[in-house]
Amino acid sequence: MLIREAVDGDWPSIWPFLHEIVSAGETYSWPRDVDEVTAREMWMPAAKSRTVVAVDPDGTVLGSARMYANHMGPASHIASASFMVDAKHSGRGVGRALGEHVIDWARTAGFRGIQFNAVVETNTRAVALWRSLGFEIIGTVPEGFRSTAHGYVGLHIMYLKL
Amino acid sequence: MLIREAVDGDWPSIWPFLHEIVSAGETYSWPRDVDEVTAREMWMPAAKSRTVVAVDPDGTVLGSARMYANHMGPASHIASASFMVDAKHSGRGVGRALGEHVIDWARTAGFRGIQFNAVVETNTRAVALWRSLGFEIIGTVPEGFRSTAHGYVGLHIMYLKL
Repeated sequence: MLIREAVDGDWPSIWPFLHEIVSAGETYSWPRDVDEVTAREMWMPAAKSRTVVAVDPDGTVLGSARMYANHMGPASHIASASFMVDAKHSGRGVGRALGEHVIDWARTAGFRGIQFNAVVETNTRAVALWRSLGFEIIGTVPEGFRSTAHGYVGLHIMYLKL
Repeated sequence: MLIREAVDGDWPSIWPFLHEIVSAGETYSWPRDVDEVTAREMWMPAAKSRTVVAVDPDGTVLGSARMYANHMGPASHIASASFMVDAKHSGRGVGRALGEHVIDWARTAGFRGIQFNAVVETNTRAVALWRSLGFEIIGTVPEGFRSTAHGYVGLHIMYLKL
């Protein structure tokens, strides 16, 4: 599996699974009814961040990640990132590969740590994955997320020192 | 002291102390060299948030607060806010009045909690003020902020259940 910079032409491959994930409303704090133009602007913004896709040897887009500084100015040395993996390709290590890629990128770019602001407590696969990559939960917003399946659940803030 | 909706005409009063606070680089994770147009857009954005000013009986602007949903979609029931108080008017309860105003606003608007994402550990007056209003520290990003005076210091995430 190759991870490369996402380009404009990847958007038609990303939008279907991104839309599926966001509209399910179980793991992302985005508006469930987000329109395509807004979603594209949010996932592939023009500057100051980086968006990549994970691609199969045959060119199929398996997932995508976005990485950026979590705050500005005197707090701009901590990175953050968001991940979307196509459910059709889950269980193949796409999330892990994207996570490792983000860690390498942030380390190389000179960030001192990576902070995830909103990892849904019931998204246990994501929590386990980030833990296995060295992230720890540094705090949990009680009832910070409203899950369709589980009602109000906690929203973890996770951190990795680089 | 009155707290009212901030209007376009308040910006010339806000910009000097906002600029002073941000360029000092001690308490805010904004670019220290932020220009006026960008700062205005960030502090008084057009929609989906609310910006107020605290005003003296003679009309002097003493400080300002901005309030908004911390996340979107299924996590949009937690509010967040930012505060700027003119140092010339500190010690007069401006921050407390603005904080109480934000709490009332968030409660009335139906939010279930308020989360502050970046309270600088060495900004002890702010930490003490938010604690006195019922906020608790739910996590701290280690070395999340680079202070000119103290080097790398922690960045608290504070939370109030409504």
